[in-house]
Amino acid sequence: MPALVSKQNPFPVAIITDFGYRDHYVGAMKGVIASIAPGANVIDISHGVTAQCTVAGAIALRESWRYFPRRTVFLAVVDPGVGTARAPIAIQTRAGARFVGPDNGLLWLAATQAGIKRVVKLTSPRHRLTHVSATFHGRDIFAPAAAYLWRGTPISALGPALPASIVALELPRPTESARELRGEVVYVDGFGNLVSNIDRRTAEQFGSRFRHKSL
Amino acid sequence: MPALVSKQNPFPVAIITDFGYRDHYVGAMKGVIASIAPGANVIDISHGVTAQCTVAGAIALRESWRYFPRRTVFLAVVDPGVGTARAPIAIQTRAGARFVGPDNGLLWLAATQAGIKRVVKLTSPRHRLTHVSATFHGRDIFAPAAAYLWRGTPISALGPALPASIVALELPRPTESARELRGEVVYVDGFGNLVSNIDRRTAEQFGSRFRHKSL
Amino acid sequence: MPALVSKQNPFPVAIITDFGYRDHYVGAMKGVIASIAPGANVIDISHGVTAQCTVAGAIALRESWRYFPRRTVFLAVVDPGVGTARAPIAIQTRAGARFVGPDNGLLWLAATQAGIKRVVKLTSPRHRLTHVSATFHGRDIFAPAAAYLWRGTPISALGPALPASIVALELPRPTESARELRGEVVYVDGFGNLVSNIDRRTAEQFGSRFRHKSL
Repeated sequence: MPALVSKQNPFPVAIITDFGYRDHYVGAMKGVIASIAPGANVIDISHGVTAQCTVAGAIALRESWRYFPRRTVFLAVVDPGVGTARAPIAIQTRAGARFVGPDNGLLWLAATQAGIKRVVKLTSPRHRLTHVSATFHGRDIFAPAAAYLWRGTPISALGPALPASIVALELPRPTESARELRGEVVYVDGFGNLVSNIDRRTAEQFGSRFRHKSL
Repeated sequence: MPALVSKQNPFPVAIITDFGYRDHYVGAMKGVIASIAPGANVIDISHGVTAQCTVAGAIALRESWRYFPRRTVFLAVVDPGVGTARAPIAIQTRAGARFVGPDNGLLWLAATQAGIKRVVKLTSPRHRLTHVSATFHGRDIFAPAAAYLWRGTPISALGPALPASIVALELPRPTESARELRGEVVYVDGFGNLVSNIDRRTAEQFGSRFRHKSL
Repeated sequence: MPALVSKQNPFPVAIITDFGYRDHYVGAMKGVIASIAPGANVIDISHGVTAQCTVAGAIALRESWRYFPRRTVFLAVVDPGVGTARAPIAIQTRAGARFVGPDNGLLWLAATQAGIKRVVKLTSPRHRLTHVSATFHGRDIFAPAAAYLWRGTPISALGPALPASIVALELPRPTESARELRGEVVYVDGFGNLVSNIDRRTAEQFGSRFRHKSL
């Protein structure tokens, strides 16, 4: 693939949520983004993530983020703990991608692939809506933060730095014995395809031992 | 929140319908908008409004319109009476927002919040598709009207003025006695949250009477 | 409808798939398009086409393509045979529209209406992702091809010319006797409306014979 066309802000805001398609929630978030960052190209990854399932959201983000332009701002909201102590955060990664969302494991898989460089807690009153509700941080905190990042606001302006150790996602790990590699299905997609927790490299390494033996 | 970035047409066309996500209907509407207003930023609020339920559509519009840029053109189509006598209208509001859709109550809640300033009936042949079907005014009448408003066509060019008294939505009202405030659930969202017809102010005013008594 | 506003690339990339709304697949495709063609206006026709149903996809495309700007690039992926011998193609039509997708009948109805002018097989390594998976040509082959067409890459650069006879869609045809025109329902939309294989012209011609007789 040859070099990409360059232009001002050649990266989008990409959104993934579990808000579904019946209600106005996604619309309200996009309204906020359009108000703060009128020229932003907003792309839906999905709003059909299984409700409150951070695992499904984290996997979808892990599988898609690398196909987006380098400096894309990812706005991810699957937030069963909205209104509790979990921190609202933004992440700058070494790969260039920025991630905005709750620190509940949702961002973990993608952000660690991209290389976490800096994490801030979204507390700046100037970079959220004036009235922050108890139940809709997607609209009141996360969407404004993503829009300001898109506009060029430095991530450090959004709030104080946090340790780079964000909340990890507790995915089951495959177990391996001499003769058996045992995984678990962690996701079923809309076509019925099963996604397990055994990645390609693990499967190939395990398989290669048997080929060696039989030769 | 600081002042917003200004640029040419820094407002979107925001769409809400009950067309669902299986068919090409939303796509056809967006094709019409892209043909008439190629640079328009088109935002989906939702296309999953309960089929033919003007109440659900009106509530979604009421809950989201204020989060959009000031001069946003809202294109709303939940239209069980398509092809009957109900008027196709466009509304200019004092808040700046414009609303386009059928005059069947769908626009009532949002437009009265925004302050109805001018209403026109969409009859101009130059501002609709050449062939108007009996069943798809969203594509043939409403989408063109929204696209022309976005381009700067004055609302008065779209058709003759109507009285500002558009069709009201008949929502049940809460009843109040000395000891009881009685409402009704008017909407259930995708998470299972219940939305009643008792707004925050009514609940607080009712509750404050009891606090006074007990003090 | 008066002449449309002209500007650089005043046409969108319009996407229709059966990928659904739960997963990240549509998001990954859009990420690829945003990477190759950052300024492209991407419009969703639908991603809710019945899974693997080329007939439903072909009908949706036939019903919507003519409402889009003249040079729109249509990216259509309903691809039960992904990874088999079916060819990935791009079509230039006399009407101006371009179609990208699998040669499995999906593009047939719309492309023949628009007038097939040139067909190429998408084989150019420079115009697809570096790693092409066995199961996701939408992301790896079709999305890049659509994005390059949008950017102005000539269709001939995408691969070798094929005969203009693309794979036809085998829709049942209505049968006609002296007293009976017999069709079949080929599609049921989200509202429950039935779409038959009898088009308006056929119905009117058949009906007009009876009016003549009874006069």
